[in-house]
Amino acid sequence: MDSRPGYDRKLLNILRTAASVFAEKGYSRASIRDISGATGVSLSGLYYYFGSKEELLYLIQDHCFATLLTRLEEDLEGVADPECRLRIFVRNHLHFFVANMEEMKVLSHEAEVLTGDFRSRILDKKRAYAGALAGILSELREPEGGTGSEAVENALPPRGEGATLRTTTFVLFGMMNWIYTWYDPERDLPVEELEQTILHLFLHGVLTPPAPDGEVRLPETSRMGRSSIWRGG
Amino acid sequence: MDSRPGYDRKLLNILRTAASVFAEKGYSRASIRDISGATGVSLSGLYYYFGSKEELLYLIQDHCFATLLTRLEEDLEGVADPECRLRIFVRNHLHFFVANMEEMKVLSHEAEVLTGDFRSRILDKKRAYAGALAGILSELREPEGGTGSEAVENALPPRGEGATLRTTTFVLFGMMNWIYTWYDPERDLPVEELEQTILHLFLHGVLTPPAPDGEVRLPETSRMGRSSIWRGG
Repeated sequence: MDSRPGYDRKLLNILRTAASVFAEKGYSRASIRDISGATGVSLSGLYYYFGSKEELLYLIQDHCFATLLTRLEEDLEGVADPECRLRIFVRNHLHFFVANMEEMKVLSHEAEVLTGDFRSRILDKKRAYAGALAGILSELREPEGGTGSEAVENALPPRGEGATLRTTTFVLFGMMNWIYTWYDPERDLPVEELEQTILHLFLHGVLTPPAPDGEVRLPETSRMGRSSIWRGG
Repeated sequence: MDSRPGYDRKLLNILRTAASVFAEKGYSRASIRDISGATGVSLSGLYYYFGSKEELLYLIQDHCFATLLTRLEEDLEGVADPECRLRIFVRNHLHFFVANMEEMKVLSHEAEVLTGDFRSRILDKKRAYAGALAGILSELREPEGGTGSEAVENALPPRGEGATLRTTTFVLFGMMNWIYTWYDPERDLPVEELEQTILHLFLHGVLTPPAPDGEVRLPETSRMGRSSIWRGG
């Protein structure tokens, strides 16, 4: 995608606005004419960037997963401790989605719309991303490197050794992703406390009260100020 | 709804088939004509039961939540221990949704479609259901009855005392509800093991290995064989 001529701030703006329109109206009801109205870009201007509404949805999804993966890799760089790696994964994922709730809704609701090559490219990115979390969880449970890592390479097989790892991975995604249905950043816990609550529940469970001084916190990174995928570029 | 004449097996069959059509095509793209084609019931036959596509969606959602709530109350009857009540809630919810994955998708994706009176009636049922889980979690954390129960009566306020309870409640719903995006009953862990895995993670966390003989199991109830909401009636 980055190699396209004109993959620039204008396209990023179109993707962001289109994601809002899809989140509001639903992908199937929204038309390219609606996108044109919302962005102020002419139909021919839009078709310079993509050939169809499906390609536009693909570009939104691709940009989201590519940004998530790139930031994750940057943040994990040089960090070896599995629990610390898990905290970085959860922080990256939550901060990204709280800053991009509409994109999250589009990713969740329109996951099955893409076909053919678009579909398989997004599936590859999704598998890589879920595989990264599964890899961390596998290290967390078996620091010496056990059966888990093979399961990860097998792209989370539902049967056998990998079944519990696969379940655990998607249960953690559920803890985080479901926020798009209920979390209101203006009224609910601040995202840092949401992150601590989810991490504590996942690591220690609800029966273990959190330490009075809170969880071990990661050093602040420069991530915090640039969580929207549409700002960084 | 139950007081309507003709609220019968034929309507239940229409609701089940309509839920499949909405899950497959999306609510906005599906027409009453599609429902007629899929059910084999004429348009006038369908309009005997509901006045609009929106009322049909309302009836599906209302039937789901009413069934969930009724079964939950039956199963919780006479059970006092909070952890046991939690296990019953999770079992009821998961078994219901694994048996009704298409309805789950419709409930998740079309949550914001209803308007006016339909919307407020479903919101009341949803609040009652989320409030039931919050009440159990509040007892679990403060068995003597602390601040939690006031928060529950306040319908899970996002700020103050209830904020963490509200977060914990919806994080657990996320662990369970997200299964509609990944869980395949034919290939993944059997629903009983899914239930044990989620309960163990939520109660004890991933860092505590499950006991070799598995979790304490609830006595089998008659629930297991009649999980589909469309069978019981």
